[in-house]
Amino acid sequence: MTGAVTSDTYATTEAKLEAALNEARLGFGEGGVPVGAALFAADGALLGRGRNRRVQDDDPSVHGETDAFRNAGRQRDYRSTTLVTTLSPCWYCAGLIRQFRIGTVIIGEARHFDGQHEWLAEAGVAVTVLDDERCFDLMTRFIARYPEIWNEDIGEL
Amino acid sequence: MTGAVTSDTYATTEAKLEAALNEARLGFGEGGVPVGAALFAADGALLGRGRNRRVQDDDPSVHGETDAFRNAGRQRDYRSTTLVTTLSPCWYCAGLIRQFRIGTVIIGEARHFDGQHEWLAEAGVAVTVLDDERCFDLMTRFIARYPEIWNEDIGEL
Repeated sequence: MTGAVTSDTYATTEAKLEAALNEARLGFGEGGVPVGAALFAADGALLGRGRNRRVQDDDPSVHGETDAFRNAGRQRDYRSTTLVTTLSPCWYCAGLIRQFRIGTVIIGEARHFDGQHEWLAEAGVAVTVLDDERCFDLMTRFIARYPEIWNEDIGEL
Repeated sequence: MTGAVTSDTYATTEAKLEAALNEARLGFGEGGVPVGAALFAADGALLGRGRNRRVQDDDPSVHGETDAFRNAGRQRDYRSTTLVTTLSPCWYCAGLIRQFRIGTVIIGEARHFDGQHEWLAEAGVAVTVLDDERCFDLMTRFIARYPEIWNEDIGEL
């Protein structure tokens, strides 16, 4: 109640992106698809963070966004939450955002995957694209090294 | 190579639905949201089956469809696969279907949740709704008993 920022509170967009980017970097180090995400409450409290685990867990259902959502546990209402993801969400993750009415989505970059921003906005989601070079560079390095895994992850042949 | 139907092959729509419905029944018995699903190869081989695990695992990311998808492991191509689900897919699961280009979706019932059939069809998915009374009755019983869990599962307040 002092108003102090605790270590679990991410007040700025930059701090929120850093949390997601750190997950992406961890994934890259594990040889996985380097997409990270984090879900925050309205006051900036971290609810959950996660990363793509296709390679690490041999699990195609775990994208960065779905992992952050899972790790946030059961929430009653997502309207006031903010989901930060290092890469623009695919249809699977956009569907998650829309179904659970996550209010705000902040996207690190949308050059490697240009997701459903308009579709989300039409459903009432506030969408911001940062075009962050660090997010872009991490994906560039991964896709150059493992193009077939990247294509598998987004259902492209 | 004898043409015999093995125990892992589900040749008919009825047999496929039964596999999904059995998952839903298991979920009901566990006190969970009774939605089950199964993913099949073109020849009817079962690739994976699963059920909603919100209650059982306290995991909001596991719907019937995403669990079956997960349990099928990493597949190169989903176009020739058939996903059977006891209940019409929500946006989250519809997004999964669309992103990974699952070719065929068979839906047990769409009265308790009327999902994105047209949206999926426009994306090239072959959608069939069976309006199966057993699927409908199972959901009816669950929703009457735990309406708040059902609303939580689909992001309704």
